[in-house]
Amino acid sequence: MSENAAAKESAIERFRALTTQIKSYEELLGVVYWDMRTGAPRKGIAQRSEAVGALSSEMFRLSTSSEMGELLDALSEPGAQDGLTAIDRKLIQETRKDYERNLKIPPELYREYVVLTSQAETAWEEAKAKSDFQGFLPYLKQIVDYNRRFIELWGVKGTPYDTLLDMYEPGTTTAELDRLFGELRKRLVPLAEEIAKRGDKPDTSFLQGKFDKEAQKRFSLYTLGQMGYDFEAGRLDESVHPFATGLSTGDVRITTRYLEDDLTSALFGTIHECGHALYEQNVDPALNGTPLCGGTSMGIHESQSRLWENMVGRSRGFWRRYLPELKKEFPAQLEGVDADAFYRGSNVVEPSLIRIEADELTYNIHIMIRYEIEKMLFNENLDPERLEEAWNAKYKEALGIEPSNAGEGVLQDVHWSGGMFGYFPSYSLGNMYAAQIIHTAEKEMPSLADDIEAGRLLPLKQWLTEKVYRHGKMLEPGEIIERITGEPLQSTYLCDYLEKKYKEIYRLG
Amino acid sequence: MSENAAAKESAIERFRALTTQIKSYEELLGVVYWDMRTGAPRKGIAQRSEAVGALSSEMFRLSTSSEMGELLDALSEPGAQDGLTAIDRKLIQETRKDYERNLKIPPELYREYVVLTSQAETAWEEAKAKSDFQGFLPYLKQIVDYNRRFIELWGVKGTPYDTLLDMYEPGTTTAELDRLFGELRKRLVPLAEEIAKRGDKPDTSFLQGKFDKEAQKRFSLYTLGQMGYDFEAGRLDESVHPFATGLSTGDVRITTRYLEDDLTSALFGTIHECGHALYEQNVDPALNGTPLCGGTSMGIHESQSRLWENMVGRSRGFWRRYLPELKKEFPAQLEGVDADAFYRGSNVVEPSLIRIEADELTYNIHIMIRYEIEKMLFNENLDPERLEEAWNAKYKEALGIEPSNAGEGVLQDVHWSGGMFGYFPSYSLGNMYAAQIIHTAEKEMPSLADDIEAGRLLPLKQWLTEKVYRHGKMLEPGEIIERITGEPLQSTYLCDYLEKKYKEIYRLG
Repeated sequence: MSENAAAKESAIERFRALTTQIKSYEELLGVVYWDMRTGAPRKGIAQRSEAVGALSSEMFRLSTSSEMGELLDALSEPGAQDGLTAIDRKLIQETRKDYERNLKIPPELYREYVVLTSQAETAWEEAKAKSDFQGFLPYLKQIVDYNRRFIELWGVKGTPYDTLLDMYEPGTTTAELDRLFGELRKRLVPLAEEIAKRGDKPDTSFLQGKFDKEAQKRFSLYTLGQMGYDFEAGRLDESVHPFATGLSTGDVRITTRYLEDDLTSALFGTIHECGHALYEQNVDPALNGTPLCGGTSMGIHESQSRLWENMVGRSRGFWRRYLPELKKEFPAQLEGVDADAFYRGSNVVEPSLIRIEADELTYNIHIMIRYEIEKMLFNENLDPERLEEAWNAKYKEALGIEPSNAGEGVLQDVHWSGGMFGYFPSYSLGNMYAAQIIHTAEKEMPSLADDIEAGRLLPLKQWLTEKVYRHGKMLEPGEIIERITGEPLQSTYLCDYLEKKYKEIYRLG
Repeated sequence: MSENAAAKESAIERFRALTTQIKSYEELLGVVYWDMRTGAPRKGIAQRSEAVGALSSEMFRLSTSSEMGELLDALSEPGAQDGLTAIDRKLIQETRKDYERNLKIPPELYREYVVLTSQAETAWEEAKAKSDFQGFLPYLKQIVDYNRRFIELWGVKGTPYDTLLDMYEPGTTTAELDRLFGELRKRLVPLAEEIAKRGDKPDTSFLQGKFDKEAQKRFSLYTLGQMGYDFEAGRLDESVHPFATGLSTGDVRITTRYLEDDLTSALFGTIHECGHALYEQNVDPALNGTPLCGGTSMGIHESQSRLWENMVGRSRGFWRRYLPELKKEFPAQLEGVDADAFYRGSNVVEPSLIRIEADELTYNIHIMIRYEIEKMLFNENLDPERLEEAWNAKYKEALGIEPSNAGEGVLQDVHWSGGMFGYFPSYSLGNMYAAQIIHTAEKEMPSLADDIEAGRLLPLKQWLTEKVYRHGKMLEPGEIIERITGEPLQSTYLCDYLEKKYKEIYRLG
């Protein structure tokens, strides 16, 4: 081995060890965050937040260390990557991106921010339960301030808000989102109006009533099994805000929330989170333990949860197969309801206050509202004190309804307590990705509809594993969608899909 | 401020920050270990073990770093501790002890060991479930080998096994344990024999039967509440091997195990773990976040669990108050049983195979067996392959019974999978400490027996908080016992207590 080859091997080995160490810490913090959300004792939270802050700071320190800088420089020299695997090369590329981004944040600032957001999530839970916006406001103000400072430090791209957007969906801009949301609005708002005016409203009476929590839980577990969720590589728990968390391919956890007076909340929530989980469980095991093990972007991640939730879970075929199973748990409540009625009832379009319970059509309006408010916060310096007011006004204007309290309004989502500004648009991007992907899946798997109707969900899972899941972060969102569908992201597929589905349901021929 | 004063402040501040960082990592690892024992998915364990290994190594590196060495040296210079608080001074003393100990272990060796013991615990759980000693043997062999190497590196004190003992109960030696166990044997073995020959055996028929798990769980939760366990600073879960874990004073978790055919297992197991938890929940909050926050030794810790389990939970007065409550859960099974019968039945003395279900009297024999086997492993180089054989022989010789499989024999305890050799003697030390402490408590609180009989358990908790809990690691085990009782640890109190209790129960006048 030449001296150069030896030096290169040593650099790549040290680089792999360092990125593995960072990923290890991330995994451990993932367990701790999961624990904080699923039942950690209240009185331990303040001290736990300090501990989380200490390890997050260390992760941050490692990712911005001079050793990391030197290794990245050494591995970026001409010829330094010759003979390296594709995984190593992608690892270098992704790590450099994070390195350059993180280097701009002073470590002490970052540490304070981690402690703050860790405490804020608990404060949010309490404030939400009490519908107490003022109780959460001090946290929110600080989190917004930190993000404004981060934007300055990172540098404004286009608009300040673009800087945040880029973090969740690389390359996405306010300009592009304005265009995409514009197209959605142009086709979907008239559709929603037509439905409201002339649609034949489905019966939803059977979805109201009392639905035993344990029975809902059993059906959730059953559904997860049908979808191919690996219970030896995950578990289902409860939390205020449902989430999925991928700690490694062998440990991908889901939470859900059971409402005894609402059958559909946990039903579709579980399918949604399972879509996220299938992605994380089926990443190529070769990526395990590296920072490339996980979904490639929030938009692509959301495309998988929403594809399973809406295009599979809210399809007529799905209920032809699974309604009899659901009736075993709720025979009285669902007596006399057939698959068609259940399908129509669970796809009712109705302006509502809670995003995660919204129908597919108005869902994007919930996202638009958050998108516009976040733009106001960062591009127009909206005072967070005015957030509840702005929120309520936008709901009234866009959906004609207004929250009666902060719990069903501005406090409903966990995201801002964690500083996740710029994340919400991913949900609508996910809807668009999903429609475009399922359009191709239907062409490539002519039996797809029959499979779903027969309860054979695994061929779709297999196809998505092949096309999306196994790649982890090895492919960019744009590469994934182009490889699968042959073209970049379009809004057309979502609009076509929604028009076809809802005109049929609402008998608008 | 003089230059010296500034340098000192800087050293103590850096020292506090460093020890806080180490303690933070310990807390996070505590959450992860708890998770691994209470429901982490099987397929994630290997990767999780790697991640745990990475952070444990970092903790180890910090605790043996040249920075730590320099700070300890600076803070040990003449006058360097003038004006420091008692907490700081104790922190320096305890940290130096760990530093000197850890410095002798090469970091790579330590890292391998952490990964090994992390995987071994899962292997043990599976092996125990299948009673498969051979399946666990490869792990056990390695763990013993590592410990033999550690002893060499640390240096042999007296005998090799003494080096391990010192870790759990500072200052304890094989010589002292031989003496204490000798005294116990001299008085307790004749007592057990007399009971077997001439005792009036209590009726235990009502303890057999079917006891609904949910009802047991409800009673466990009720009992915890009565004992003053703070549910906002803890939670109760299930695990194969019950344990308590103190992550901070605000998060002290308990697990228990419900056997549907055995009422007493969870009943007294929960009280036992709650004794540990009361200790950890009631450490002076000023010690929170420092390495001094926690029980001072395994023996003192065990004295608290066993004081609550045996001297409170297995007392006649306790059942006069709580049997009616227990009957609410199990009216049919306990019909016609009065407090006296329940007291006698739950204190039956019987040679048995499972340590954690043993009565107070024969319990020490279980410990003696483990103590003797561990001495053989480290002082006589017993091959771990012969462990099951040695175990079975000793049970036959000492208790006249032999395990029919490894699950109820050599595999029954989790300790060895975690490399905790030298820990078991703490249980008997705990019994002795407990008897000596309760002897003083009875003198200082003349109403203690009446309080327990009236369900007033909190005065005892308060007294123990004052005498034991609040001190955390600020006092050594020897200081605690001398301060409370005015003399060093004696075996007499335990023997007196057991003789009095069991002669009365077995009507041996």
